[in-house]
Amino acid sequence: MKSISDTVEKKPWVGWLVFGATVGAVIVAGLLASSIMERRSEAKQIGMVNPIADWEPRNEVWGANFPRQYETYMDTKDTSFRSLNGGGAHRDYLEDYPNLVVLWAGYGFAKDYEQGRGHYYAVEDIRNTYRTNAGMPSTCWSCKSTDVPRVMEEQGVAEFYDGSWFDRGHEIVNTIGCQDCHDPKNMNLRISRPALAEALARRGEDINDATHNEMRSLVCAQCHVEYYFDKSDGKKNYLTFPWDKGFSAESMEEYYDEIEFSDWTHKLSKAPMLKAQHPDYELYMTGIHAERGVSCADCHMPYKSEGAVKFTDHKIQSPLNNVANSCQVCHRQSEQTLLENVYSRQEKVMGLRKIVEQTLATAHIEAKAAWDAGATEEEMKPALTLIRHAQWRWDWVAAANGSGFHAPNTALEVLGTSIQKAEESRRLLAKILWTHGVTDPVPLPDISSKAKAQAYIGLDMAMEEEMKQKAKKEIFPEWDKKAAERQSKMDTPANVDDKKSDY
Amino acid sequence: MKSISDTVEKKPWVGWLVFGATVGAVIVAGLLASSIMERRSEAKQIGMVNPIADWEPRNEVWGANFPRQYETYMDTKDTSFRSLNGGGAHRDYLEDYPNLVVLWAGYGFAKDYEQGRGHYYAVEDIRNTYRTNAGMPSTCWSCKSTDVPRVMEEQGVAEFYDGSWFDRGHEIVNTIGCQDCHDPKNMNLRISRPALAEALARRGEDINDATHNEMRSLVCAQCHVEYYFDKSDGKKNYLTFPWDKGFSAESMEEYYDEIEFSDWTHKLSKAPMLKAQHPDYELYMTGIHAERGVSCADCHMPYKSEGAVKFTDHKIQSPLNNVANSCQVCHRQSEQTLLENVYSRQEKVMGLRKIVEQTLATAHIEAKAAWDAGATEEEMKPALTLIRHAQWRWDWVAAANGSGFHAPNTALEVLGTSIQKAEESRRLLAKILWTHGVTDPVPLPDISSKAKAQAYIGLDMAMEEEMKQKAKKEIFPEWDKKAAERQSKMDTPANVDDKKSDY
Repeated sequence: MKSISDTVEKKPWVGWLVFGATVGAVIVAGLLASSIMERRSEAKQIGMVNPIADWEPRNEVWGANFPRQYETYMDTKDTSFRSLNGGGAHRDYLEDYPNLVVLWAGYGFAKDYEQGRGHYYAVEDIRNTYRTNAGMPSTCWSCKSTDVPRVMEEQGVAEFYDGSWFDRGHEIVNTIGCQDCHDPKNMNLRISRPALAEALARRGEDINDATHNEMRSLVCAQCHVEYYFDKSDGKKNYLTFPWDKGFSAESMEEYYDEIEFSDWTHKLSKAPMLKAQHPDYELYMTGIHAERGVSCADCHMPYKSEGAVKFTDHKIQSPLNNVANSCQVCHRQSEQTLLENVYSRQEKVMGLRKIVEQTLATAHIEAKAAWDAGATEEEMKPALTLIRHAQWRWDWVAAANGSGFHAPNTALEVLGTSIQKAEESRRLLAKILWTHGVTDPVPLPDISSKAKAQAYIGLDMAMEEEMKQKAKKEIFPEWDKKAAERQSKMDTPANVDDKKSDY
Repeated sequence: MKSISDTVEKKPWVGWLVFGATVGAVIVAGLLASSIMERRSEAKQIGMVNPIADWEPRNEVWGANFPRQYETYMDTKDTSFRSLNGGGAHRDYLEDYPNLVVLWAGYGFAKDYEQGRGHYYAVEDIRNTYRTNAGMPSTCWSCKSTDVPRVMEEQGVAEFYDGSWFDRGHEIVNTIGCQDCHDPKNMNLRISRPALAEALARRGEDINDATHNEMRSLVCAQCHVEYYFDKSDGKKNYLTFPWDKGFSAESMEEYYDEIEFSDWTHKLSKAPMLKAQHPDYELYMTGIHAERGVSCADCHMPYKSEGAVKFTDHKIQSPLNNVANSCQVCHRQSEQTLLENVYSRQEKVMGLRKIVEQTLATAHIEAKAAWDAGATEEEMKPALTLIRHAQWRWDWVAAANGSGFHAPNTALEVLGTSIQKAEESRRLLAKILWTHGVTDPVPLPDISSKAKAQAYIGLDMAMEEEMKQKAKKEIFPEWDKKAAERQSKMDTPANVDDKKSDY
């Protein structure tokens, strides 16, 4: 057996070969290092060209510094994606589920309730819905615009909530955007709305203790939560999260019962109703993704690469339209499989939701018949409380985005208890009806379409349309004019492309 | 710069160093290879010392060839593990949930229903339960023992099912074991019971097409499924799986309705009832573990290593008692976290189960009151059908092992529909009661303990105990004597340690 040194002594070209290979390897390594340095330097270029004022509402001013985030944010204009589970079309929920019209009789949602569009359309959509025809509290603007923190800063928080929705229209024109979640000094995630911090403070928690990962959900939780407008102790529609007793449907129900709060009195049943907003964060917190430390942004704003730059995709959207960058970061299944997994859970949730909707619509109608037959408040109270609780629990699931996928087990459990209460209310109502001589089943009206259901509950939709058209002609242009005047006086850095303005 | 050959020429000890290092590496590699070969040879030693007869029922005869599998199987003797979720104690379900006594009035389960013990105790436990006091069809033995395929082979399948449970006691003495799942020739997984293959055949599926991975669940699905005893067309309690229309609670309900099958007529409500057995496989199939190709054996019989030998742990048990080898093979969370994840799902399922149990117990009692008040069959039929369906769906979840964890979403959805039907039955019953002059609420008996509930439904538990003691004294010893005589005539390979016999 020969040693290497023997070989090299006898065949010197072997040594040269080793030398040559080494030289080659060093050159390759050098090229690689150079490429890495170049990419690092590209990545470093991200930074602010112009400083941004503290309550700057205009997204395009921020966008001049952060083109990638701004451009992907602007992609929220594109709302063409529809979950196949929903038949791939834009949904008019009242058309699809006319029972909802009856469930919300006497409340704005009976007029108009469509699938939400992106953040980009927040201001436009709140102007256009029939729900704002009759005017709403100014508080309704709270989550719609980057102008809100600015006006709150200028006028005070309680003062902002006080007054009518119409009073603030000229101030609120820039749709949801950069400033809602970021500190303009350093782009840190920042809470811009007081209600979240206040709710946590009442629970003994300090929002400033939140980790970066928690903030990637908490900025969303400023708005994607359950809330109500507090009018107690002289407060004027003060935006409040009902989290004092906990985050569950049951805890909030207890909270609302204790303060005897109701959003409205039902037009048919006269039950003191609660309207759930969109408790996305609360439902999500009970699910496995939250349990595993997955934040809202991880799925709805996953990381994206452009060249050497990795950044957060600000096209906030359904992860189902971006499975590769959201789900598949963790889940090693095909896109098709993952979609089917989501849909199968949502279908179960929808199955139980429909049971409640049918039962509750009938319960409201039977309650009306009981009143008509002469039932007393005392007789009706237990049944109406059951209706209140059943509809609240249903809505806690139904109003949240994601059709229950944020926590399917919780959604199904809560719906199970909702079914029990809705059905029990019908049993109590049957007894009351019997007591007052109504022994035949209460005849059910034809509410098989949105229009029929709206006619049944006495809505004048032609008048609603007329009011909306009037506002579009006479009010909104005035708002825009005033806003443009105000904004024209604001400092605008030279590099801001006016054409990019989304207002 | 010097080349290596220059260096070696001038400093020959460098070449020797390289040579020495190489020699060292070769020695280490050789040792490693030798160790691997040794372990392989150890692994190869697993094989049969003595051939096993085709329908050999005695586990110890198989065990002589496969000591690791046999010893771990014998560990199923240890039933000390109790889920913390269940309070860590052995559960007497009737004591914990006395409503169940009312739900099963007129059926054996009202007498006695405890948490199952391991496979090791199958024969002992079926002898000892009060449920077999009055005799049951011979079919009840089908899943209890390795003697069953032997007797079916000797007498015929239909012939085996025909007759009383008492007729076969002396034949059925070896508890569930090796032969139920394995082919003695080659240890391949094998279906030993005809009902599964027959059910799949009716669905156009051939059990012989099943993959090895599917077989790791299908051998369990021979017994851990829903089944009934077919008495139609002259059949005599022929064991049948109601899978013709599908595996869901709804499909099976439709199947049973179509053939107008009922397990018993409820003693109080007179509803034609269904008793779910343990549709573990059917529920599991709708869950995410099945969707991801995880078999029953993967979690309940995970792989285990002893020295060089990797084998399937035959201590069939709750994965919660073996999280490291079951869950943690895929899930990178702590044991504590994983247990909490399981418990949180089970608690939701239990929450809805309790709602149904309370509602259904009351419905049965109210139905009895309606009959007592003079209700007619025609009046009662819709309410009784709702009771039948509600209890069936509840039982489809409740009777399955794992408290719904095999598919929590499905379990919760099915329970949601059960709640609806149970509550609706109470509404219909309220109307019937009113019609017959019963306007006050039906007084509910005290069923707050197992004993009270059993007294309420008219069970004579002292007599049940007396019957059981009589059978233990007079019948079972006779069975054992006959069985011992028969087994003494069977070939017993020399290496079988008689002391290891579990019979």
